[in-house]
Amino acid sequence: MRATAEHTATGVTGSGVRQAAARLAGVVVRTPLLTSAGLSSAVGADLVVKAECLQVTGAFKFRGAYHHLSRLSPEDLARGVVGASSGNHAQALALAAQLLGAPATVVVPADIPEVKLAAIDRLGADVVTYERDSQDRDQVVAALSAERGLCVVPSANSVAVMVGAGTVALELLQDAPDVDTILVPVGGGGLAAGCAAFVKATHPRVRVIGVEPYGCNDTQLSLHAKHSTPIAAASSIADGLRHNAPAPLALPVLLHYLDDVVTVHDDAITEAMALGFEHLKVVLEPSGAIALAALLSGAVAASSTPGTHLDGRMGVVLSGGNVDWATFGSLITRRHERGLPRLHRPG
Amino acid sequence: MRATAEHTATGVTGSGVRQAAARLAGVVVRTPLLTSAGLSSAVGADLVVKAECLQVTGAFKFRGAYHHLSRLSPEDLARGVVGASSGNHAQALALAAQLLGAPATVVVPADIPEVKLAAIDRLGADVVTYERDSQDRDQVVAALSAERGLCVVPSANSVAVMVGAGTVALELLQDAPDVDTILVPVGGGGLAAGCAAFVKATHPRVRVIGVEPYGCNDTQLSLHAKHSTPIAAASSIADGLRHNAPAPLALPVLLHYLDDVVTVHDDAITEAMALGFEHLKVVLEPSGAIALAALLSGAVAASSTPGTHLDGRMGVVLSGGNVDWATFGSLITRRHERGLPRLHRPG
Repeated sequence: MRATAEHTATGVTGSGVRQAAARLAGVVVRTPLLTSAGLSSAVGADLVVKAECLQVTGAFKFRGAYHHLSRLSPEDLARGVVGASSGNHAQALALAAQLLGAPATVVVPADIPEVKLAAIDRLGADVVTYERDSQDRDQVVAALSAERGLCVVPSANSVAVMVGAGTVALELLQDAPDVDTILVPVGGGGLAAGCAAFVKATHPRVRVIGVEPYGCNDTQLSLHAKHSTPIAAASSIADGLRHNAPAPLALPVLLHYLDDVVTVHDDAITEAMALGFEHLKVVLEPSGAIALAALLSGAVAASSTPGTHLDGRMGVVLSGGNVDWATFGSLITRRHERGLPRLHRPG
Repeated sequence: MRATAEHTATGVTGSGVRQAAARLAGVVVRTPLLTSAGLSSAVGADLVVKAECLQVTGAFKFRGAYHHLSRLSPEDLARGVVGASSGNHAQALALAAQLLGAPATVVVPADIPEVKLAAIDRLGADVVTYERDSQDRDQVVAALSAERGLCVVPSANSVAVMVGAGTVALELLQDAPDVDTILVPVGGGGLAAGCAAFVKATHPRVRVIGVEPYGCNDTQLSLHAKHSTPIAAASSIADGLRHNAPAPLALPVLLHYLDDVVTVHDDAITEAMALGFEHLKVVLEPSGAIALAALLSGAVAASSTPGTHLDGRMGVVLSGGNVDWATFGSLITRRHERGLPRLHRPG
């Protein structure tokens, strides 16, 4: 293993993740690790699946948001919190704030899926919308923070958020210490950073591979260049992962610990959602299905011929399930109508 | 509580369920107990949900089938096993047999959903089909058993199967000892019998209510008459619960321990499936959603005015998720197109 100077500098450490786990015990759902002979056979690999779509608020984001808030002072909580999000962090922040008695304001894109907006609404947060293409959401947040004296809770760019998210890997390794590789979605990079830091601190032989949507590969490019490489993120059905650049506090951790980043196309994401429905009985949003999609598309290289069985046990983080029926229904129906070739399906 | 002569006569006891749990540890998925503020608010009750759709083979049936097989002699296992099922018991039996090295033959209705048939096939069982309306499946099973020397593994009518299924209630009460009522689907009655026997042996103050599809209320009628009251089961989207009579070994247990049986219509089942998708991110087959449907339809009486908040904490067993996309997609799409009044939804 390489020297650990960078990660200790950021504070995203194995012990930080362990402390977060202790603070989150009894608050988060200990999501199940699912297996399915049918899914493993369809994918051509031995899979264990961490179903974070079953987490409170439907995504892993609650772990980081609650952990960050739980470390604020009573005075900060009383003044209130603000955060920006494509939806899942907003829901997570709204619930965490409700549980800890803090007023919450969330900044969401105007095109947020209805199911996410309704859920935020129910949790009593103030909602402020911004235009994804013309406004900088961080500026909107900064202005609200300055104006109303609110504490900013980043969706990824916070050590407390990242180590909170890293508890996903901690639980996965407790339940399946024999995995060889863990696949994790990459948006801002907080989940990947928290998971990779924990995995390498405790199970250094386990590979950690990030997955981004094709055309939204800011982290892949940054990893290759070894410094932040912002892009104009392309369109993708994985709305939660359309980021322009890795979170600054996540990047050094990712550079240090992530073994690789791969990208996948939307059709593989849809196929992964369909397999989640069929074999796991879970609802996955596109961003939540992307790690499984990487196994279907061949993005994660097999040890031998592409399309053959992948060596080793794969831990797959399915990160969220907040998707409108209109979106889910039309994606899966189209996939069935097309009768898509089942990629990488032996026999 | 009434005398316990009947249940000890059948052997479906609290300690039987505990022994089954010990035997199933590490083999079955410890399915999560899910909560959702959005779902509780939509239903107007404080809910905890046992998500058995996430069980191995997609339904609770694996608990009973594996437990039954695990108690057969090596000689019986070597000769092989046979069972009949609308699909979920067949999958469960096929996997349990595979794990324990026994050849399996499963007898399924000719109209079995494709997703269930494909799953049985993958598990290597021999499949024999029968016509639901013209053939007696028990006779088909008996003939195969006689002809090939196979051990019959009933889907409900077995003490080992019932106490295996009762581990659902054991886990639910371990995770939520404060529930006031448990709602459980009723087909052959094995799940309800195992759960009710365990609940009343250990938490006698907790109510256990069975739920049947409207027109398939053989158990409700039998409970009212205090003896088996066979019917010609009507059509229902809950294909797993279309039984003509309670299993003979389940009936005395149900008569003794079940507090009530209620029935629900298909539209409430569809609504429950939609709420499972939206709030819990789980896929429910119609039979698997019926216990939640009973809360939506008003079948389970509120303490005060219908439509108001139900008192107490409700434990809801969502028993399975094996449903074809064609069925699921069309049911939920029609529900969205109709813009159904959300029954019992406050505010």
